[in-house]
Amino acid sequence: MTRQPQPVLTIPQLHEFLERDFPQVAEDFIVTEIGPMRLCLRLVPGDRHLRPGGTVSGPAMFALADCAVYLAIIAHVGEEALAVTTSASFDFMRKPEAGRDLDAEVTLLKLGRGLVVGDAALRNDGSDALVARATLTYSRPRE
Amino acid sequence: MTRQPQPVLTIPQLHEFLERDFPQVAEDFIVTEIGPMRLCLRLVPGDRHLRPGGTVSGPAMFALADCAVYLAIIAHVGEEALAVTTSASFDFMRKPEAGRDLDAEVTLLKLGRGLVVGDAALRNDGSDALVARATLTYSRPRE
Amino acid sequence: MTRQPQPVLTIPQLHEFLERDFPQVAEDFIVTEIGPMRLCLRLVPGDRHLRPGGTVSGPAMFALADCAVYLAIIAHVGEEALAVTTSASFDFMRKPEAGRDLDAEVTLLKLGRGLVVGDAALRNDGSDALVARATLTYSRPRE
Amino acid sequence: MTRQPQPVLTIPQLHEFLERDFPQVAEDFIVTEIGPMRLCLRLVPGDRHLRPGGTVSGPAMFALADCAVYLAIIAHVGEEALAVTTSASFDFMRKPEAGRDLDAEVTLLKLGRGLVVGDAALRNDGSDALVARATLTYSRPRE
Repeated sequence: MTRQPQPVLTIPQLHEFLERDFPQVAEDFIVTEIGPMRLCLRLVPGDRHLRPGGTVSGPAMFALADCAVYLAIIAHVGEEALAVTTSASFDFMRKPEAGRDLDAEVTLLKLGRGLVVGDAALRNDGSDALVARATLTYSRPRE
Repeated sequence: MTRQPQPVLTIPQLHEFLERDFPQVAEDFIVTEIGPMRLCLRLVPGDRHLRPGGTVSGPAMFALADCAVYLAIIAHVGEEALAVTTSASFDFMRKPEAGRDLDAEVTLLKLGRGLVVGDAALRNDGSDALVARATLTYSRPRE
Repeated sequence: MTRQPQPVLTIPQLHEFLERDFPQVAEDFIVTEIGPMRLCLRLVPGDRHLRPGGTVSGPAMFALADCAVYLAIIAHVGEEALAVTTSASFDFMRKPEAGRDLDAEVTLLKLGRGLVVGDAALRNDGSDALVARATLTYSRPRE
Repeated sequence: MTRQPQPVLTIPQLHEFLERDFPQVAEDFIVTEIGPMRLCLRLVPGDRHLRPGGTVSGPAMFALADCAVYLAIIAHVGEEALAVTTSASFDFMRKPEAGRDLDAEVTLLKLGRGLVVGDAALRNDGSDALVARATLTYSRPRE
């Protein structure tokens, strides 16, 4: 069995980190769960996240997935503001439902010293239908 | 030789389309070039596109690439508001420079009746250094 | 809740399909499990799948993931020999172990009339460490 | 202008490298061109690369693209046998033509100390129609 890395930060610590380092987006997101190699982040959509018809836009889904995987990394390795997104791939399955929150359920697939790979499944709050699935890779700074 | 499809809409027609169908983002973007299987779109960044330090954010790069490929499709097949983004993959090469416009140079790799695949190279205005490279796929509605 | 599509073919029927339509690779693969939106396929590596050192090669991992998702589709929609792979993305996490079978655990993320998206997690037999993760998209023929 | 890195190995040196380090595939491939941040590799298909109907298989296209980008890296940084493929994404545009060689035209998009990203356009010999387009990322060993 692979030993699972454990989170080293709590949900309140992650919210503090967001407010301090990413004040421009901190109010959009709520960390709802955290666990070994896992984290769930909720987007509470404001007008700027919506397309006509009231569905969450592509760029807002990108922001949600990117923030969610980034927070999952921070939660496991501590604050490391220099990790950078090197790639992101998205599959869009169905339109998000209008007027509902969007949840990203992150699984860290690899937590290496050089590269971290995370998977984010996006679903509307309370639904099990996949809206989108994203995989993001981050490069950690070399010591 | 493969016969190259030609654009059927002009730059002013594309700007009209943007303003009518995507008024919330129309002012962010300028179509600067159009040609067979090609289109260039410029993002003139506003505060909402920037991260601390003044560089364009990941979600804004997503918006630029998605809008650029979508407009390239519209330019070649006419207005078809129902084509949907089914996948997007991004490689981020270097940080965009602060305070500069960001250009997306689109090449349509496949313009099928079912699927369209477009490539977008993102560079700062006047630079030949790649900031990011995106590939997006769209599904066209079945008649 | 989303109603889960159920498989319509059995494991022996899938093996028959492989032997009839893909005789050149049929002996490499064994379907080990099947369920709603799921399928597991095992690669029993031969010399032609190995790199020096005895680990399974990248092309062999591609073959495993592609075959696994394809069989998952066939298992759910019946024999449909014309579905074509339109895109594939792979993240490679760690080297496969030498001398061991490689398992692909497939989850169908979307089973649409036009596009099907499947996820394949590759692990060595009996290990929970991810060797690679692939996402593949197939276009189904229009009727 | 970005200064373009120049190749440090010649075509015969790359062929020697292939024969010595990858003897099992060396006879499949011919380097046909090399230039700043560029390399072209040809697959001369044998029976093991073909699907029924005589077209080159997906795994063989994976092998071609992976080998082509890898050789482009080696050509620019010298022999570095430990660089590993960390991700690969493919878009398949059209079926390769039966009985014809398949060319991969590689452009290195980023040649960093940590990560290298390369793009490979696959076309049948003498055709300008894109068969597939791949993007591959490699991690270079930390010194």
